Amino acid sequence: MNYCSECGAPVTLCVPEGDTKSRYVCVQCGVVHYQNPRMIVGAIPEWGERILLCRRAIDPRYGKWTLPAGFMEKGETTSEAAARETLEEACAHIEVTEMFSLIDVPRIDQVHIFYRARLLEADFKPGEESLETALFREEEIPWEEIAFHTTQITLRHYFDDRRNGHWGFHVLAHGAMR
Amino acid sequence: MNYCSECGAPVTLCVPEGDTKSRYVCVQCGVVHYQNPRMIVGAIPEWGERILLCRRAIDPRYGKWTLPAGFMEKGETTSEAAARETLEEACAHIEVTEMFSLIDVPRIDQVHIFYRARLLEADFKPGEESLETALFREEEIPWEEIAFHTTQITLRHYFDDRRNGHWGFHVLAHGAMR
Repeated sequence: MNYCSECGAPVTLCVPEGDTKSRYVCVQCGVVHYQNPRMIVGAIPEWGERILLCRRAIDPRYGKWTLPAGFMEKGETTSEAAARETLEEACAHIEVTEMFSLIDVPRIDQVHIFYRARLLEADFKPGEESLETALFREEEIPWEEIAFHTTQITLRHYFDDRRNGHWGFHVLAHGAMR
Repeated sequence: MNYCSECGAPVTLCVPEGDTKSRYVCVQCGVVHYQNPRMIVGAIPEWGERILLCRRAIDPRYGKWTLPAGFMEKGETTSEAAARETLEEACAHIEVTEMFSLIDVPRIDQVHIFYRARLLEADFKPGEESLETALFREEEIPWEEIAFHTTQITLRHYFDDRRNGHWGFHVLAHGAMR
């Protein structure tokens, strides 16, 4: 950040009075520009024993497989975000059910949330940001080709829980990435 | 948003190519300025049968009671945010335990998260943003004087779960505020 988004004057990095952290503060109008972590929200769309994955048509991790997920937008709920991302990336309609995982990724200032979801019909195809979309049984998951660590962790817990017949909610911190 | 935070030129509101939503785009350098929901994270600090509340010394809701909570900062996890806010607002050290509630508040582009937590000692006092801090049993909670609806919902579920002897994780959307 170099300039104030309100008045266009330069900003300076300093600790505002009464604060404990450095912030971008406008040298002209004095506005403090706070920056906060962002949420990535996604779904685990189920179709019987299989789940839907998307192969990425964009960077980062072009060509790798992942669950449909993306940045939460203003004006929507977390479950709406999960449904929208699934529609955008896999042209698939889902019914979002339980929140399944919440993973802190402080190194990149993100929180990743995944919901379990039910595919409403076995009707899907790659959206703009996907090369390919397909259903996978546990033994078919391309573990070595999964795009993100948080997706991989979520899938591991998902199949563990399904095998155990007990669905949990998993709050994790992505320690390995710190 | 009026000016580009990178180059200082004016921004215009338009739908970038390949996107579906209006974004602030710089007329000079072309950077797209995405805006995303923010997370408010807090704690329910327990001391035996009582929980710790803070009376707000700042707007909004000056003078009302609430759980220690605030905007999650970059570089921290959700549980670290809950512990930091409790230290800042009540000068109290906690051990964060289970995530208890996640409440979507799409009308104001926020997601509120509350953790259960254990006060490490009955040692607390108002921080800069609090007028007063105190422990309350369920029957002592000043329900009419609670600052925010998400705090009130969280407290209701908390005492319900405690009475029932079954702790859940509560994902809610703040419909009434939409």
